[in-house]
Amino acid sequence: MNKITSIQNELIKEVLALHSKKGREEHGKYMIEGMKLFEEAISSGEIIESVFVSETFPQKNLLEENSSAELKKYIKNLNIYEVSAKIMKNISDTETPQGLAAVIKKKDYDISNIINSDRLLILDRIQDPGNLGTIIRAADAFGISGIVALKGTVDAYNMKVVRSTMGSLFHLPVVYTDEADVLFKKLVDSSFDILVTHLDGKEYINQTKLGDKCAIVIGNEANGVCEDIIKFATKLVKIPMKGKAESLNAAMAATVVMYQMMIRG
Amino acid sequence: MNKITSIQNELIKEVLALHSKKGREEHGKYMIEGMKLFEEAISSGEIIESVFVSETFPQKNLLEENSSAELKKYIKNLNIYEVSAKIMKNISDTETPQGLAAVIKKKDYDISNIINSDRLLILDRIQDPGNLGTIIRAADAFGISGIVALKGTVDAYNMKVVRSTMGSLFHLPVVYTDEADVLFKKLVDSSFDILVTHLDGKEYINQTKLGDKCAIVIGNEANGVCEDIIKFATKLVKIPMKGKAESLNAAMAATVVMYQMMIRG
Repeated sequence: MNKITSIQNELIKEVLALHSKKGREEHGKYMIEGMKLFEEAISSGEIIESVFVSETFPQKNLLEENSSAELKKYIKNLNIYEVSAKIMKNISDTETPQGLAAVIKKKDYDISNIINSDRLLILDRIQDPGNLGTIIRAADAFGISGIVALKGTVDAYNMKVVRSTMGSLFHLPVVYTDEADVLFKKLVDSSFDILVTHLDGKEYINQTKLGDKCAIVIGNEANGVCEDIIKFATKLVKIPMKGKAESLNAAMAATVVMYQMMIRG
Repeated sequence: MNKITSIQNELIKEVLALHSKKGREEHGKYMIEGMKLFEEAISSGEIIESVFVSETFPQKNLLEENSSAELKKYIKNLNIYEVSAKIMKNISDTETPQGLAAVIKKKDYDISNIINSDRLLILDRIQDPGNLGTIIRAADAFGISGIVALKGTVDAYNMKVVRSTMGSLFHLPVVYTDEADVLFKKLVDSSFDILVTHLDGKEYINQTKLGDKCAIVIGNEANGVCEDIIKFATKLVKIPMKGKAESLNAAMAATVVMYQMMIRG
């Protein structure tokens, strides 16, 4: 295993650049942390550019300790670097680094990757990284085939988002687009039902009829779905509620709607 | 309006003490921040011990600016204090204080307050404040009549929890108990169905038959429901999932189960 001892090393500089959205876009890569996400990345077929393990990482000798022959072979071909605990602390986005970080190649998805799906989720300016991560995880669990993030949505490759997806980011395409008009026109042309969740919704999500192809739009945490997008809705829907709470947070609302879409088929 | 100019003022010392669980327990009070939560506390009939407004708070003259005669009368009887921006920053739990903080009397709920309900939520060691707040908000939205928090669950009066409940904390009783055995014995005696969510669940939550009285148990974020509690389950249930995600986070799982219980009646 190669050792990196200086924070000035070019590879380390690159990893640090991936902490920002600008850096991730320039390099076309992002960073993950921890053994669990790393294994999930491997099993999902992600392209792993490089791996950094702390000299104090208990599972440092990945090659030896991993039992699966397939994984061993795979890991043998990876660029693995040992770094000092200090460098790992610099690389890491968390207070207590997990001792392993890896650089993954970003996938370049566009609308053509998701337009033939039957269950889409469209996000209008979801800003909280934890919410986005949760939503991606729920989308994966409830059979959504693709996500489109409109302008103003936080970057899905943000390290906090990646962490809270628990690997679901590897399982379905997340497409970023600034051209909402183009997207919705394509959805209409492809016979998508476009459901917008709205407090003034006319139908309850558990009673509305779902088309063969459905896109559900979830809006910004504070302001909901913007008017320019509501105009594309084929249906305004709402979540049934029984108590005194006025609303749900964006991640919960998305979770409930996706769950409901799944159980109704 | 009385002015407080010193951080050594006894009332300010008390507010600061409410930042810790120990302080909240000693005083039997907790703190809320922001006009929205404050109004929600009033309309929910909470007992407001004192109110602190920053000298720079735009809605400082609550009495004059609020239109409802009833609210005016109510506010007239409150102990409102003007404090400097510096004191407000000290009192506040957030980076950007909202300019209003209020001290509310804690309600002392016990199991007798919830045992006659028909839909209960039981939390086994939910540790993340954001998760607990989200769960309380969803419980309110989906018609849960009471929550029991078992030993190891974060304090619902923690300021981050209070914030993320968005006022739902005022709407339903949250009972803390260390005596899980006593609780479950009472639930069994009161003919409750006790549903435990579990990855090895035998029935899907959307297919299981729900009794007239139902308690659903949600477990710790990392470890799920502990074995000592699983033994009380009348049913192990699971959430249907379609994708590659292994699980949902605790708040999402709770949200989906409560939603499902509500729509099935």
